[in-house]
Amino acid sequence: MTSERVATDEAAMRAAIDASQSARGISTPNPPVGAVVVDRAGVVVGVGSTAPAGGPHAEVVALAAAGDRARGATAVVTLEPCDHTGRTGPCTAALIAAGITRVVYAVSDPNPVAAGGAATLRAAGIEVVGGVLADDVAADPLRAWLFRLRTGRPLVTAKFAATLDGRIAAPDGTSRWITGDVARERVHRDRARLDAIVVGSGTVATDDPALTARHADGSLRGHQPTRIVLGRRPLPDGARILGPEAPTRHVASHDPAEAVAAAGDALSLLVEGGPTVLGAFLAAGLVDRVQAYLAPTVLGAGAAAVLDASVATLAQAHRFTRESVEILGDDLLITLAPTV
Amino acid sequence: MTSERVATDEAAMRAAIDASQSARGISTPNPPVGAVVVDRAGVVVGVGSTAPAGGPHAEVVALAAAGDRARGATAVVTLEPCDHTGRTGPCTAALIAAGITRVVYAVSDPNPVAAGGAATLRAAGIEVVGGVLADDVAADPLRAWLFRLRTGRPLVTAKFAATLDGRIAAPDGTSRWITGDVARERVHRDRARLDAIVVGSGTVATDDPALTARHADGSLRGHQPTRIVLGRRPLPDGARILGPEAPTRHVASHDPAEAVAAAGDALSLLVEGGPTVLGAFLAAGLVDRVQAYLAPTVLGAGAAAVLDASVATLAQAHRFTRESVEILGDDLLITLAPTV
Repeated sequence: MTSERVATDEAAMRAAIDASQSARGISTPNPPVGAVVVDRAGVVVGVGSTAPAGGPHAEVVALAAAGDRARGATAVVTLEPCDHTGRTGPCTAALIAAGITRVVYAVSDPNPVAAGGAATLRAAGIEVVGGVLADDVAADPLRAWLFRLRTGRPLVTAKFAATLDGRIAAPDGTSRWITGDVARERVHRDRARLDAIVVGSGTVATDDPALTARHADGSLRGHQPTRIVLGRRPLPDGARILGPEAPTRHVASHDPAEAVAAAGDALSLLVEGGPTVLGAFLAAGLVDRVQAYLAPTVLGAGAAAVLDASVATLAQAHRFTRESVEILGDDLLITLAPTV
Repeated sequence: MTSERVATDEAAMRAAIDASQSARGISTPNPPVGAVVVDRAGVVVGVGSTAPAGGPHAEVVALAAAGDRARGATAVVTLEPCDHTGRTGPCTAALIAAGITRVVYAVSDPNPVAAGGAATLRAAGIEVVGGVLADDVAADPLRAWLFRLRTGRPLVTAKFAATLDGRIAAPDGTSRWITGDVARERVHRDRARLDAIVVGSGTVATDDPALTARHADGSLRGHQPTRIVLGRRPLPDGARILGPEAPTRHVASHDPAEAVAAAGDALSLLVEGGPTVLGAFLAAGLVDRVQAYLAPTVLGAGAAAVLDASVATLAQAHRFTRESVEILGDDLLITLAPTV
């Protein structure tokens, strides 16, 4: 990566966005930020992303990687560098000390405690450009963090994998696999970027899912989300979800708000089902995104994807706006967001 | 249209494809063909499409429109001109008599009775180019006709309009409208190109659909498909489906094959539901295409899109291949075709 050349600020920002992805789920409660240091020839001489809480921010990691080559270089960061001393020193000071002469960032820091970085850098004679690919960063790597700053709770995604007619299992309960390899790979990649996953105790009893984030070869990915089981059914001894790969919490309740509370300071939370849990989150107004993986198959019977969402008539339907449609092998991933 | 200029054979063929659309549902049992006559300056001097059975073929209509300007011109046709005398004379003779010097066509005529047109034209000294946009024509305007030639039955499309979780109505039965204006406009356009629509007698009793093809202002489109009601429930007096806009046949049976037989020599048949009728067609292996209109909404309760499709376990799922994904306003149209 450090011999990569980037011709424009946008290209450098894309490299910073890529770097930020590995911090997702890990940086919490801090934002998953990415940074690259680019020398005057356009060579990427340092790459970094936010370390776990208490560790260095992305800029500091990238500066350390760049070493002396940071002098006279440009730092490109997905978030405005912080200007305050928390568990680490201000990034502005680190950038100034390293001899950075130009800073490019995407999203302005909306957090009043940390903001003001751009002004501090300019006062130190550094050229500062803000807003580069700001929409891309706000819509993806920093989306959950920005959402939590604004609302005080994690971004909740409700996910199901179903046939085109909305079935998540055949009448005999078989459900492996409704969607194909490419879709499953995507689910596991997304899990590795999350803070927490919620699943119903009924699904644990029926399907015994591990809810780990794995590679195609079965090996664990670097980060595992916390598993939260919602519902009053006891967890069977030896349930895979009780395995040592990640923490597991059992919330013996039917209240989605309690599952959200159990996620602590999580930025992102994925509700993986079953149907009753998805319905309860919808009914509680706690769904900020819907992900439907749809296979090109029809069952005509078997469990429905969503149940009991407090809808009696069409006017009460949970209405969303289409955010994206992605083709994943034979399957589709349709993502909806609240209508604003 | 006749002052349009077309710079290439492909552009002329696209005009012929456009012309052919108006013959769909009307030309049956003949293929819905389109033709344009293009003079040496690239000006479209005649446009035609297949008239109802017993009337002239597309080439003859286009030649008549072109009149003397056909002399020395190119005829561009979606199907190889026929070489036999049926209820009308051979198109090859009409093209030769009109002084056409070049013929471009898309699909070769697979019908042994009518084939041989290209050879006859060449023997008359006419330059003949076949295969232009053949895949486009075979996949769309001539698809159902080619299917019927190959299989002896109409191309059957199973259609439903549902929420993202596969519901076609809320628990209280409300279903107008799950999908939006753009999707409904598309349904009506498609109906006007069909020979027949099948609906269950339960749906007639519950929803009282007219199943006519209308414009957005409510006025009837030029062609109306035959309405076939499948099922043992009697049709209520005054049911809208008994209106004078189109023929209606009641097949008092639960056998999809009887509904197909009732469609006679239809090229295309759309199964519009309800869920049990869709399931019966799937179970009978009589679905050649699935059209799912999906709204960005979630209900979590209410009628499912498909029921009783003879599936007990996932290995028996009706598996298809994705043919297309279209964005229609807020909704999606996902089209599946059999896996070959």
